Amino acid sequence: MANSIGSRHWAIAEGYLPGWSTGEDPALQSHETCCVLNAGDAPANLAITLYFEDRDPAGPYRARVEPRRTLHLRFDALTDPEPVPRATPYASTIESDVPIVVQHTRLDSRQAANALMTTIAYSG
Amino acid sequence: MANSIGSRHWAIAEGYLPGWSTGEDPALQSHETCCVLNAGDAPANLAITLYFEDRDPAGPYRARVEPRRTLHLRFDALTDPEPVPRATPYASTIESDVPIVVQHTRLDSRQAANALMTTIAYSG
Amino acid sequence: MANSIGSRHWAIAEGYLPGWSTGEDPALQSHETCCVLNAGDAPANLAITLYFEDRDPAGPYRARVEPRRTLHLRFDALTDPEPVPRATPYASTIESDVPIVVQHTRLDSRQAANALMTTIAYSG
Amino acid sequence: MANSIGSRHWAIAEGYLPGWSTGEDPALQSHETCCVLNAGDAPANLAITLYFEDRDPAGPYRARVEPRRTLHLRFDALTDPEPVPRATPYASTIESDVPIVVQHTRLDSRQAANALMTTIAYSG
Repeated sequence: MANSIGSRHWAIAEGYLPGWSTGEDPALQSHETCCVLNAGDAPANLAITLYFEDRDPAGPYRARVEPRRTLHLRFDALTDPEPVPRATPYASTIESDVPIVVQHTRLDSRQAANALMTTIAYSG
Repeated sequence: MANSIGSRHWAIAEGYLPGWSTGEDPALQSHETCCVLNAGDAPANLAITLYFEDRDPAGPYRARVEPRRTLHLRFDALTDPEPVPRATPYASTIESDVPIVVQHTRLDSRQAANALMTTIAYSG
Repeated sequence: MANSIGSRHWAIAEGYLPGWSTGEDPALQSHETCCVLNAGDAPANLAITLYFEDRDPAGPYRARVEPRRTLHLRFDALTDPEPVPRATPYASTIESDVPIVVQHTRLDSRQAANALMTTIAYSG
Repeated sequence: MANSIGSRHWAIAEGYLPGWSTGEDPALQSHETCCVLNAGDAPANLAITLYFEDRDPAGPYRARVEPRRTLHLRFDALTDPEPVPRATPYASTIESDVPIVVQHTRLDSRQAANALMTTIAYSG
């Protein structure tokens, strides 16, 4: 059924917050987003862990997605337990207690025109 | 067999219609597309539901894809039961009565040169 | 084993050859590519079918990928049985007699700076 | 469990290092990245093989990802047994002795503003 579509285990191997931006609009500042869809009837409680190349993981970061809602979570909005460093390669896993769908997007506006990329995350 | 490739349950966690565009050509206006392939021998009747961050879902939106045809449905062409708001995060599910393949694409022309992103949607 | 990785049935729901290009370099002309990896020990014989919104499918287009080789097939290079129309939505299926991996890429250079998008195709 | 998410067999059918770049910053030079997440408790030993259109494969290239770490491996950093040629279509397989997640990204800065594309690789 559509209202339980998804998986509880997700991973995004690519992660990088570009170090600067061109343009004033907050929506056009370089950023990455973890888009979560909870199409089901129960709230989704998320635990996000960030992995790095040369240090131990950070997290878990906690978030909640209400039933039949989406959450487009900007990685640069994460602060607890620590902010995500810029210009630093990272990766992430997203664990949920109910099925969700996760999609990863980056907007890079370091140069005069922004670039975009997206992919459905890996569900395992 | 190729003529029945696909799934009946699809989800796209990312959705965002950029708030403005650069350029006059309709094909270069900022938009998102839900590309559907019905490679089979029976028509596909679709029910699309849109999910938001802070309100109840919209839909279902109805569409039909004839046998052995594709439909590249622009989200900004949806009007019934309501148009899709711009500059607002959303997500979507696509239900079909026969197997289909769904791919999500955004063209963003807010700045001087357009940006593109695409992914095969999640099938569950 | 790595040398048989893949599937024999693939689909790409998005397809669109932009109608024009900026720049002289052939590699920077707007195009779409069907990238095929045949990591196995036997040749892959491909049958590609193109689907449209308002007419019957075109094809099959035939191609062959030798063992342990890749083929980056530009859709605008297809001519038999007919060329792919520009500025026209289409979709495609790729059938192979041995396992392959398929990835879809578009380069759009209609504006001053090119845009890119890619996704692993859908395997069914 | 999150700490064993992934697969041991991965493939990327698209591969192309653009022939030139605009801009001085190394992070903005045209490149492709094989992003690997090893969320597990054991090191991941990788064997990467590159496939071409008209010659035998190159490799295996060896890399190691420590437990609970990510590695964003630039293809233009590979040198042993041989560097990756520019402006040449290729594809790749990534074999690991423990489960990993692989994502493929290209940054193309041949023109005035960079373009990006990404996809979770194919796991088989």
